[in-house]
Amino acid sequence: MKSLTHLDENGRPRMVNVSDKAVTRRTATAEGRLLCSEQTLALVRQGRTPKGAVIHTAELAGIVAAKRTHELIPLCHSLALSGVSVTIELRDELPGFLVQSEVRSTGQTGVEMEALTAVSIACLTLFDMLKAIDRAMVIDQVAVVSKTGGASGAWAGTAHD
Amino acid sequence: MKSLTHLDENGRPRMVNVSDKAVTRRTATAEGRLLCSEQTLALVRQGRTPKGAVIHTAELAGIVAAKRTHELIPLCHSLALSGVSVTIELRDELPGFLVQSEVRSTGQTGVEMEALTAVSIACLTLFDMLKAIDRAMVIDQVAVVSKTGGASGAWAGTAHD
Amino acid sequence: MKSLTHLDENGRPRMVNVSDKAVTRRTATAEGRLLCSEQTLALVRQGRTPKGAVIHTAELAGIVAAKRTHELIPLCHSLALSGVSVTIELRDELPGFLVQSEVRSTGQTGVEMEALTAVSIACLTLFDMLKAIDRAMVIDQVAVVSKTGGASGAWAGTAHD
Amino acid sequence: MKSLTHLDENGRPRMVNVSDKAVTRRTATAEGRLLCSEQTLALVRQGRTPKGAVIHTAELAGIVAAKRTHELIPLCHSLALSGVSVTIELRDELPGFLVQSEVRSTGQTGVEMEALTAVSIACLTLFDMLKAIDRAMVIDQVAVVSKTGGASGAWAGTAHD
Amino acid sequence: MKSLTHLDENGRPRMVNVSDKAVTRRTATAEGRLLCSEQTLALVRQGRTPKGAVIHTAELAGIVAAKRTHELIPLCHSLALSGVSVTIELRDELPGFLVQSEVRSTGQTGVEMEALTAVSIACLTLFDMLKAIDRAMVIDQVAVVSKTGGASGAWAGTAHD
Amino acid sequence: MKSLTHLDENGRPRMVNVSDKAVTRRTATAEGRLLCSEQTLALVRQGRTPKGAVIHTAELAGIVAAKRTHELIPLCHSLALSGVSVTIELRDELPGFLVQSEVRSTGQTGVEMEALTAVSIACLTLFDMLKAIDRAMVIDQVAVVSKTGGASGAWAGTAHD
Repeated sequence: MKSLTHLDENGRPRMVNVSDKAVTRRTATAEGRLLCSEQTLALVRQGRTPKGAVIHTAELAGIVAAKRTHELIPLCHSLALSGVSVTIELRDELPGFLVQSEVRSTGQTGVEMEALTAVSIACLTLFDMLKAIDRAMVIDQVAVVSKTGGASGAWAGTAHD
Repeated sequence: MKSLTHLDENGRPRMVNVSDKAVTRRTATAEGRLLCSEQTLALVRQGRTPKGAVIHTAELAGIVAAKRTHELIPLCHSLALSGVSVTIELRDELPGFLVQSEVRSTGQTGVEMEALTAVSIACLTLFDMLKAIDRAMVIDQVAVVSKTGGASGAWAGTAHD
Repeated sequence: MKSLTHLDENGRPRMVNVSDKAVTRRTATAEGRLLCSEQTLALVRQGRTPKGAVIHTAELAGIVAAKRTHELIPLCHSLALSGVSVTIELRDELPGFLVQSEVRSTGQTGVEMEALTAVSIACLTLFDMLKAIDRAMVIDQVAVVSKTGGASGAWAGTAHD
Repeated sequence: MKSLTHLDENGRPRMVNVSDKAVTRRTATAEGRLLCSEQTLALVRQGRTPKGAVIHTAELAGIVAAKRTHELIPLCHSLALSGVSVTIELRDELPGFLVQSEVRSTGQTGVEMEALTAVSIACLTLFDMLKAIDRAMVIDQVAVVSKTGGASGAWAGTAHD
Repeated sequence: MKSLTHLDENGRPRMVNVSDKAVTRRTATAEGRLLCSEQTLALVRQGRTPKGAVIHTAELAGIVAAKRTHELIPLCHSLALSGVSVTIELRDELPGFLVQSEVRSTGQTGVEMEALTAVSIACLTLFDMLKAIDRAMVIDQVAVVSKTGGASGAWAGTAHD
Repeated sequence: MKSLTHLDENGRPRMVNVSDKAVTRRTATAEGRLLCSEQTLALVRQGRTPKGAVIHTAELAGIVAAKRTHELIPLCHSLALSGVSVTIELRDELPGFLVQSEVRSTGQTGVEMEALTAVSIACLTLFDMLKAIDRAMVIDQVAVVSKTGGASGAWAGTAHD
């Protein structure tokens, strides 16, 4: 039966010993949404604000945060990431922003947390830049989309939409 | 008409000059959810895992992250926080975890981003501790619940449920 | 006669006690240059690269670094900055990039180091993004341009050009 | 034709995927200058200040900063450095300080940015310690001197003096 | 004869070049004590305070600090740790707390400093949580207990009790 | 009766709300010892090693760490420190090193933890620089020596020697 690997047999937290795990190539993709009003989205898209600057700032913040995941999540291993990208798209149907990340590494632990952290911080950065005009925004549906590598191999989530 | 204060008249990002804002007491509360399977929630609640350790680790991670918000969100001001608390409850109806934060400060800028960061990192930490048993979890409905202080005064969001 | 305030009477480094200094509004502006080849500048300006992304990334990196100055410079006091902006312009006559920063705070210590750190890290970030096409770039003439506030009052440097 | 590897085909910033690069030994050396008045240099050299403390503090700050390069430069990969040294010499002919760094690593990316960051932060630290007596100092001619390792092999810059 | 490897032949600090060291599995264990009054220990053990929360917070703080050792100790190499655990026990005979850590890595440098940092920060965190009731506590006997791996092989300290 | 302020009524950790505390000048002094062999002390004192570099590096590391206390101790408030000094003396009678710190701030919380952190990290840095010649060193008797300011006023510890 499965149990929580971050806790030892006495329920004490630990950073799991991964010494015996194989070094493999790892990827993880994650996504999330920042839901906002139609007016906010329109303001970013059509008009008075430089869309590039808002989007670009949030994408960069997500990339930088991925590198600091192990500082933020107490029991995460520190990793040397091989590559990180974050993509933000404006979506009228939400209305809001779709944030996607892709993280790569070669090592003994997966990079799902790095991908999720990139998405979360990118969403928070969008929120910060837009909150003066829309306080009621919501960060939603942040989840792992897929992973490859490691003992458990490839995995793809079912869509949450 | 409202515009984005984090961008100057040329669309260049900046950390807004708040020198002329009044120093007031500020609070913000935020919340979010980590949705998981019934089995995962049951495992945390009933059984083979020390519930306290999982919940406690995530609450602490949220508190610590609130203090580092200005390092994570590029255009956020650094603040001396007066108090931070994070509360996580198990909720069968989700099923999942309800995460709530409260942040206090006395200064020239609001603390909504600190409250949201605390919730987001607490959710990510729960995710990290539970992902070995449930990869399909989702972080959902992260939003500001209320704020007080500052020129705009008190504000309370409409419920997202 | 003047002496080095960062060292005590035995030559031991210390973070100077500023408890008795007045709290005043402070500003500092600094600037620097990244010198590159004409081809590199032309590539950024005219063509195959999105100028905005290069410039914008470096401006953001400078803003973020200003907030971390006290972590990088061992004897600097930590400060709550009221505002930070970084501006990068393409200059054919160098050829290269002119980087300027402006930092504001209300406190007991000046913000010259924060302004200089913002310029230096913005230059380094430009270097990083362009080094694949031009390894021989040079960061040059990084200096304080002006300051206001504090016991010594306003000061403006002589131009270094 | 060369292009900017830190941007994808849409001009979006990314941390380049280096998964397929060979792991090789890497070195980089960089240098820079802090120009000051003759009086400032004389004060450090001859007299009332403990030269060692000023120089030593700046050398240490440079070493420590090299380890944090990936936190400061948004699209830099995090690296495990094998060795770092920073050397500062007093130079009457400038007048000022010559700062040199050498960084070593074994990995998939070069260490030029780490060497440049060490030099820049060492210069800023000198500036901080001396600014009470000389506000008009200038950081100048920060550049890569040489590199070895990686697909592009060894490279040595032309002297900037 | 032995000399200090962190200083070069001129007494200049450096981060030692470990490029030629073998990559081996490394472990280190360390321990320390926080001595307090009998009343403080009794309060944590028997009664009005949730023992788990105090102990757990300090264990987590130790684990997180181990990952940041290279940021705190200027000449330490940054390492990817394979595993970290921190264990705190209440000990009537001290009276006080016994703190033990175990750190694992695979690399070119030992992990003694990571183990000692974990113990030290765990002790400081206990101190922080208990100082409102006992200001006279003492952190004592922080030392390496054993190590394995590296050119010098296994080592075990003599007990300090 | 006294209770632990870092835990709420349910035993949940929190960063205590200090909004209603008076802003006062605060100082704290702390000390600790690094015990080593007579040979190690003699090596640092008499001979083959530049005493200044070892001592100076550890003093600087302590100062820098004081500024980062709130990042290391989960429930500590972040503070703007007004001044920090760390002094290390060689002591034949230990044999070893006596490390003392003094920290000043003006604010709503005490600075004992900052003073203790400065001492602890200075001791760890000494350990790191000397461990190649003496693995059996011990960090001992780290304690608060005195404090002033705050509601509880001045306090001086009884000597631990």
